Amino acid sequence: MTQGRWLNEQEQRMWRSFQGMWRNLDRAVERDLMDGAALSAADFAVLVALSEAPNRRLRARDLGRCLDWDRSRLSHQIRRMEQRELLIRSSCPTDARGTFIKLTNHGWELVQQAAPGHVQAVRANFFDVLTDADVAALEDISRRVNDRIESLNLDHNPCAKAAATP
Amino acid sequence: MTQGRWLNEQEQRMWRSFQGMWRNLDRAVERDLMDGAALSAADFAVLVALSEAPNRRLRARDLGRCLDWDRSRLSHQIRRMEQRELLIRSSCPTDARGTFIKLTNHGWELVQQAAPGHVQAVRANFFDVLTDADVAALEDISRRVNDRIESLNLDHNPCAKAAATP
Repeated sequence: MTQGRWLNEQEQRMWRSFQGMWRNLDRAVERDLMDGAALSAADFAVLVALSEAPNRRLRARDLGRCLDWDRSRLSHQIRRMEQRELLIRSSCPTDARGTFIKLTNHGWELVQQAAPGHVQAVRANFFDVLTDADVAALEDISRRVNDRIESLNLDHNPCAKAAATP
Repeated sequence: MTQGRWLNEQEQRMWRSFQGMWRNLDRAVERDLMDGAALSAADFAVLVALSEAPNRRLRARDLGRCLDWDRSRLSHQIRRMEQRELLIRSSCPTDARGTFIKLTNHGWELVQQAAPGHVQAVRANFFDVLTDADVAALEDISRRVNDRIESLNLDHNPCAKAAATP
């Protein structure tokens, strides 16, 4: 690699500031979820993925794929959420392909209650300082970067794009 | 909260795609570090922070503050890196304010070896699909969002902005 391939000054500045932004956003949004609904970001991601699925249930395998979590992380998370009665595990009598995870009514109510505060946090920490042009630019940039990473990694999971928040 | 405060369709699309981008980038950059230099993102962040400090050393407290890690995470990470002889802990005879963490020559060599591959990964997965205008836009947006989050959280740590990569 030649010296010319290093980041220039503006690229370095942007890369650090951009990484700071995503750490700051993660932390701010998680803190608001925890304060407002006693949910971790992981809890919330599971609740949202299930709440958007038909009949509010998904195969464990598909849930793991959507969240892009490995089996051990998923099973640990599911066990704790089942203890809190946010979801239940069940097997389908007509389908031998593994366990279903289904949102309970309590889980559904909780995600409904948490969502407005979450959206408000995302607005306050992020969208409130963006113009319409910024939103369009970020959508375009994100799409290009995601396409690029997907093309570099054929094992990349496109489902992960669509499994986080309202 | 009224319905009007929900994200509109474009904002939702952008938010999901943007979150996908940052997860994908995290994963891609960490995988390249691991493949290229057997370093985790956490290892690399510590090595870079120390390599940029005067005399390649920092107080443990300052290192934790720069990385925005709690004491337990930092001390666990430091212990493992000391076992791998990437850094050493020492106390300063003229200064009672805690332990210093210093990069070893081995740690310094490793971060020097890892940096080109890391930059190449950041380029391939991110900068290669950005125009100069995108870089300028992302720098400006990141700064505004970081300022916003900082103003909302007076305990926010500005040092975290500048502690990741070359």
